[in-house]
Amino acid sequence: MSTMAAAVPDLAPEPPPGSLAERFRRVRAHSAHLAAPLSAEDAMVQSMPDASPAKWHLAHTTWFFERFILAARPGYRPFDPDWDYLFNSYYQSVGPFHARPNRGMLSRPSLAQVREYRAEVEMRLLQRLDAGDLDGEALQRLELGLHHEQQHQELLLTDIKHALWCNPLQPAYRADLVGSEQAAAPPLRWLARDECIATIGAPAWPAADAFAYDNESPPHRVLVPAHALASRPVSNAEFRGFIDDGGYREPGLWLSDGWARLQAGSWQRPLYWHEDLERAFTLGGVRALDPQAPVAHLSYYEADAYARWAGARLPTEAEWELAAAPLPVAGHFAGDDRFEPRAAGPVGDAATPVQLFGDVWEWTSSAYTAYPGFRAWRGSLGEYNGKFMCGQWVLRGGSCATPRDHVRASYRNFFPPDARWQFAGLRLARDA
Amino acid sequence: MSTMAAAVPDLAPEPPPGSLAERFRRVRAHSAHLAAPLSAEDAMVQSMPDASPAKWHLAHTTWFFERFILAARPGYRPFDPDWDYLFNSYYQSVGPFHARPNRGMLSRPSLAQVREYRAEVEMRLLQRLDAGDLDGEALQRLELGLHHEQQHQELLLTDIKHALWCNPLQPAYRADLVGSEQAAAPPLRWLARDECIATIGAPAWPAADAFAYDNESPPHRVLVPAHALASRPVSNAEFRGFIDDGGYREPGLWLSDGWARLQAGSWQRPLYWHEDLERAFTLGGVRALDPQAPVAHLSYYEADAYARWAGARLPTEAEWELAAAPLPVAGHFAGDDRFEPRAAGPVGDAATPVQLFGDVWEWTSSAYTAYPGFRAWRGSLGEYNGKFMCGQWVLRGGSCATPRDHVRASYRNFFPPDARWQFAGLRLARDA
Amino acid sequence: MSTMAAAVPDLAPEPPPGSLAERFRRVRAHSAHLAAPLSAEDAMVQSMPDASPAKWHLAHTTWFFERFILAARPGYRPFDPDWDYLFNSYYQSVGPFHARPNRGMLSRPSLAQVREYRAEVEMRLLQRLDAGDLDGEALQRLELGLHHEQQHQELLLTDIKHALWCNPLQPAYRADLVGSEQAAAPPLRWLARDECIATIGAPAWPAADAFAYDNESPPHRVLVPAHALASRPVSNAEFRGFIDDGGYREPGLWLSDGWARLQAGSWQRPLYWHEDLERAFTLGGVRALDPQAPVAHLSYYEADAYARWAGARLPTEAEWELAAAPLPVAGHFAGDDRFEPRAAGPVGDAATPVQLFGDVWEWTSSAYTAYPGFRAWRGSLGEYNGKFMCGQWVLRGGSCATPRDHVRASYRNFFPPDARWQFAGLRLARDA
Amino acid sequence: MSTMAAAVPDLAPEPPPGSLAERFRRVRAHSAHLAAPLSAEDAMVQSMPDASPAKWHLAHTTWFFERFILAARPGYRPFDPDWDYLFNSYYQSVGPFHARPNRGMLSRPSLAQVREYRAEVEMRLLQRLDAGDLDGEALQRLELGLHHEQQHQELLLTDIKHALWCNPLQPAYRADLVGSEQAAAPPLRWLARDECIATIGAPAWPAADAFAYDNESPPHRVLVPAHALASRPVSNAEFRGFIDDGGYREPGLWLSDGWARLQAGSWQRPLYWHEDLERAFTLGGVRALDPQAPVAHLSYYEADAYARWAGARLPTEAEWELAAAPLPVAGHFAGDDRFEPRAAGPVGDAATPVQLFGDVWEWTSSAYTAYPGFRAWRGSLGEYNGKFMCGQWVLRGGSCATPRDHVRASYRNFFPPDARWQFAGLRLARDA
Repeated sequence: MSTMAAAVPDLAPEPPPGSLAERFRRVRAHSAHLAAPLSAEDAMVQSMPDASPAKWHLAHTTWFFERFILAARPGYRPFDPDWDYLFNSYYQSVGPFHARPNRGMLSRPSLAQVREYRAEVEMRLLQRLDAGDLDGEALQRLELGLHHEQQHQELLLTDIKHALWCNPLQPAYRADLVGSEQAAAPPLRWLARDECIATIGAPAWPAADAFAYDNESPPHRVLVPAHALASRPVSNAEFRGFIDDGGYREPGLWLSDGWARLQAGSWQRPLYWHEDLERAFTLGGVRALDPQAPVAHLSYYEADAYARWAGARLPTEAEWELAAAPLPVAGHFAGDDRFEPRAAGPVGDAATPVQLFGDVWEWTSSAYTAYPGFRAWRGSLGEYNGKFMCGQWVLRGGSCATPRDHVRASYRNFFPPDARWQFAGLRLARDA
Repeated sequence: MSTMAAAVPDLAPEPPPGSLAERFRRVRAHSAHLAAPLSAEDAMVQSMPDASPAKWHLAHTTWFFERFILAARPGYRPFDPDWDYLFNSYYQSVGPFHARPNRGMLSRPSLAQVREYRAEVEMRLLQRLDAGDLDGEALQRLELGLHHEQQHQELLLTDIKHALWCNPLQPAYRADLVGSEQAAAPPLRWLARDECIATIGAPAWPAADAFAYDNESPPHRVLVPAHALASRPVSNAEFRGFIDDGGYREPGLWLSDGWARLQAGSWQRPLYWHEDLERAFTLGGVRALDPQAPVAHLSYYEADAYARWAGARLPTEAEWELAAAPLPVAGHFAGDDRFEPRAAGPVGDAATPVQLFGDVWEWTSSAYTAYPGFRAWRGSLGEYNGKFMCGQWVLRGGSCATPRDHVRASYRNFFPPDARWQFAGLRLARDA
Repeated sequence: MSTMAAAVPDLAPEPPPGSLAERFRRVRAHSAHLAAPLSAEDAMVQSMPDASPAKWHLAHTTWFFERFILAARPGYRPFDPDWDYLFNSYYQSVGPFHARPNRGMLSRPSLAQVREYRAEVEMRLLQRLDAGDLDGEALQRLELGLHHEQQHQELLLTDIKHALWCNPLQPAYRADLVGSEQAAAPPLRWLARDECIATIGAPAWPAADAFAYDNESPPHRVLVPAHALASRPVSNAEFRGFIDDGGYREPGLWLSDGWARLQAGSWQRPLYWHEDLERAFTLGGVRALDPQAPVAHLSYYEADAYARWAGARLPTEAEWELAAAPLPVAGHFAGDDRFEPRAAGPVGDAATPVQLFGDVWEWTSSAYTAYPGFRAWRGSLGEYNGKFMCGQWVLRGGSCATPRDHVRASYRNFFPPDARWQFAGLRLARDA
Repeated sequence: MSTMAAAVPDLAPEPPPGSLAERFRRVRAHSAHLAAPLSAEDAMVQSMPDASPAKWHLAHTTWFFERFILAARPGYRPFDPDWDYLFNSYYQSVGPFHARPNRGMLSRPSLAQVREYRAEVEMRLLQRLDAGDLDGEALQRLELGLHHEQQHQELLLTDIKHALWCNPLQPAYRADLVGSEQAAAPPLRWLARDECIATIGAPAWPAADAFAYDNESPPHRVLVPAHALASRPVSNAEFRGFIDDGGYREPGLWLSDGWARLQAGSWQRPLYWHEDLERAFTLGGVRALDPQAPVAHLSYYEADAYARWAGARLPTEAEWELAAAPLPVAGHFAGDDRFEPRAAGPVGDAATPVQLFGDVWEWTSSAYTAYPGFRAWRGSLGEYNGKFMCGQWVLRGGSCATPRDHVRASYRNFFPPDARWQFAGLRLARDA
């Protein structure tokens, strides 16, 4: 078998439009938009240790700008020096911080105070930016801070979804959200590829112009074996077939840890599905499941078990990136204000996979580890990604809760294998 | 040794002034008064499974009136039928209920909605009351509901104290609370009593006119051995002596379970004391400890260890009640709006114990069990007290957070031995 | 209502026959007899933190004699100085000790070594005893050590029963044990008693000649209200009626903690009962349940729920002792080598309760607390009983696994309310 | 940079000498040899849920032969049908099994019975083998059973080491074990390699003649980036440098999960090291640490933190295998009866890495996942490896407790990142 160099077109992601100041205003406004439907009480709920209250997300993303940009200048007077402790997430090198499982106990500062904090930091930062008073490193941190805030925008949505679902009243985040139009899922096709050596990963930012997290770098050559990738994600209807076939009762389909977790949690269906398998909890309340839409809210264990049941497997992240790299970042994203995956509808080119971007994050078979040559960013920000490279799995592509300009082909999201509260589904792959 | 019948004067507690409607309005208004300083966010915090959010207290006490009085009439349309599930605390015979540790996740209904609920139920109930449309049993349940709400008023205060203390900012519930005037604790005297047969307990309500919980009944004869009771509770200064003498490091002073608990929790001083042993967290924020004031926020284990260290013991509840029965219910209560124990100041009659009522609940050496002839109330309300008669200890006398007209000489409060977040202290006793 | 002084005959328990040396040899031999059917492997199993391996019981009882008698003499050379750490159970004042839940990990010392240890300490102790070389305090400790060892003899049996039951093979401790002869339980009669002042408790040993634990002292006057006591314990057949009536499914019958425990442990019947309710695991293996025999292996929660279901209650320990004090200590004990409760068979005097002693320990409604005037023994031995006076309940009367000369009317056994692995049953009482 | 095909000589591991029957006898005898120093009590200890008693290892390995070979023939009468439940480790498709954490409670069957079981199954199996009465699949399972038993031989040693260490007496497994001769560790050199495409993995057995586990297959091409590999493992002296430099106190060196684990367990040094950092617990008892010997008993977290501290990283499994493939499987193994890692001593060829095999398993940076094209074995034996491909990391090379003919260059061992009780150390790598 010959090894071909894969033809990866040089499709660098377009820089998002607008000046840095404009982008800063836009990203910050989007957080405000997402939080707008929430009462101060809603914004305080922490339904599990892995989730954070919306108020905390709003404050922490602001703290990130204050601490890493504004406070880098000697003599800076913080908005409130006590808040360093409250809104530092996990930066050991910055100092001690409030324990994550206790974020839901913070009735003070109030949501109103956090909004004041946001306004004040925004003003200070824009003043510095307008005055040309931010050096190169500060500007880079500003860039990073925007991506950081976008990440938390998605978490704000998935965390509040979980929080509202835990309320026996199961209230809607926004009752006005537009539901499914029941588009059809295109037929599933297998897109084959020969063995090749591909370069995956992104040039290291900030040396490179285009932003990427440190965990996406460096670009590196990798041998991708011959394989076939499904043309679209697995749908709710297909996953229902797995359930109906007893998939949740057959240990032979599951990883050992997954079977133990299933038993401990009495898992019988995806998170948020109603036991009638016809309805599911959404950010718009309990609604009919769209059978054609991509299945979401799966753990890695469920995605892996489904793939085994289907006689297939999950793709590696290299296989996924190879397929995604030539494609534009288009699909169903947070900007649509729908917050539920939807079917792709009619597809033009049968040879091109659809929905790689948007709708659902796709679990890959790749454990989240360092790329060859990986270097964490210098200083505190080196804690951003690298220290989590253990016990998690890579997901790719973004979801209906991801801002469109946040994601890219090289983007590596990661979650523990039992996490179900993200918009996470799967796409099948198989050996050639 | 001869056994004398103790001379217990028939000092029935005076009925609180006013008609039932007036009392209803007054008690309900007091809850609103206590909740007034709290934001909607404050009112949502649940800092541990044993505590409840203030909002939940406000709703549950209202549900109690609605469920047990209004809803007893066929055809009643509840304010919101779903709230039965949310605000039933533990009445198995009423139906399933929301798990206690998850009360803090209820952002909905909002505090504003709960206040509407309170207003609506108050209106409906007063209408029925004014219309003479409540039968005897309903009137009894109304009486009970008032005492029930008063109990929750104290819990609202102790729970919010714990919640605010858990916030690293340690904010005040009310910064305007008047602090200590540093009155002197009177000298500790031992008040001796010969062996006697006493009748303790209260006539069973509602057969008897005066309200009492079922667990205070029936009145029954008990042989009280000769003993001496301390004239006042143990002070902060005295407890400081125990700490300074290594009391928290000497296992020989502790019950076995208490020593294990101390080690698991790294206990070194009463809850809320600062490590400098000079300051403590109060509902008014962090303030100087008043050495003359009664020590509070002790577990049973700590009270018991202190008594052993002091060469004394805790009193039995019969000893306590015998001393308290002839005395008026007077002292420092919630109505003072101070919410911290204070020293008694100069005392007139050296032979009369002081501060039996108010300031701090006093741990007794009596396990919380049924009195001879105890009968739980009929029906669902029989779950109020009886089913908790295991693993808890009796406290007597009320605290600075108890409404004055809520407590009486026969009143039996009860908490598990490791509970520290109540205003609980101790009074010494010894064998004659 | 008049109060009569109860006529408690002065029936001091007869001293067990034989010299101290003879008794020492006999008690020690009984431990060996009980351990004889066990392999070294059997003797190592610890099936739960509350239970101990048989080997540990054999060693700890020996350590008790060595540490508190032999080692009290200056210059004593211990059998093995490292064993102090291993075989000290919980005497904080003696020094640190091996954590209780880890006793099952001690493959060394071997059972053979422990037997050597037993032989060596026995020889040393008998030498000192024969030589008249033990002072008064040492002789008292020897007396205590015998009672201590008898307590552990019962625990050895109940612990090994649990250990073997945890083995899926459910092997017999001794397959040759004689089973039930299916005697009939006598009809249940209610034996009424008027209110009286009784003296319960035992004179404080060693000031008094007759041995008693410190927790049984001092004798003290107590007012016992009018009541009636059942003439015999509840039988298996009667308890089966509770099960068949849905007793394990009705929360209204249970203490709140008990219901939570039942749910956590999926309790549906007494421990060791087979799900067919016809057979049970015994020390002789799985055998048919004798419907006439007293029910055993109940927690306090189950005993209390049964009594409530039966419209009765558990007796207080004073009520129990008052009934037992005039009676000889006779019944079915460990010396019968049967280790299962049996029915009483025909009864002569209908006015006398039967089976107060032996067969099953009887849960009382009395929390395990200090008697008025209680003084723990001086020194380390003061840790024997007093520090456990929290969270436990008193049981009375001894069981089919108790040595007959170990128990007496004043004897107070105690266990936490969820303990099921003892031979614990109940006798009903009710208010007059 | 050019990519060269790595020159991997075809160094197929030599088949172990002797007929299958001879190898069967030899492997089985080695288990008996390892268990010989253990008393029946030693063989019963389970010191943590992850470890198993030696008796269980002896029985389970026997059950493996009986269940998968002997019992495959219809009409087979098992040695004891109840033992299927006891000694099935985790084969869901075979049937239910005894819970792993409770293996230490099995006093029955006795060690003696397990030895009878071993003898009987050996006899039956050899009879079938001698009679030519095993078909091809049975012979393959026999081959597999030998490798399976060898795996358990190592676990028997590491589990008993942990068990004896948990005993406060810290007894030796064999006091006669020869200790260190204090050979010198060779100087650490970096062995560089250019980028290449290598084939790693083993041909799928049993299609291929040479045995390999399913998780080692199929052989597949992989691009290995340019890198350098350390010539030998990290020594105790080097690891001591990490400790002395505060490595256990600096969160910046640790994975986030690792730091949490360190704090929860108060880790300050490798498992088994004495706090004086000069001695360690070994299977020969507490002995002086050999500074020149490879460090062992590290978790992945510690290995990873050390590498980061040293400015290096762990090798990938491909890098490791590429280095090991050309080398003979030689080094310090279980057959030496030393059971402690030793220094390599003088090295001839500076360009060849040493100690890739034996002494310590080497943590790699590769998460344990499926190779491209991986197929689990058919049937129940497919549960052997595949279902554990989540949350674990690959270790390579074997240890001083591994049988020499058990390991090979393609062998993939795997453990969770917090496992410390294996003989696991590390070898450094770095990017070119």
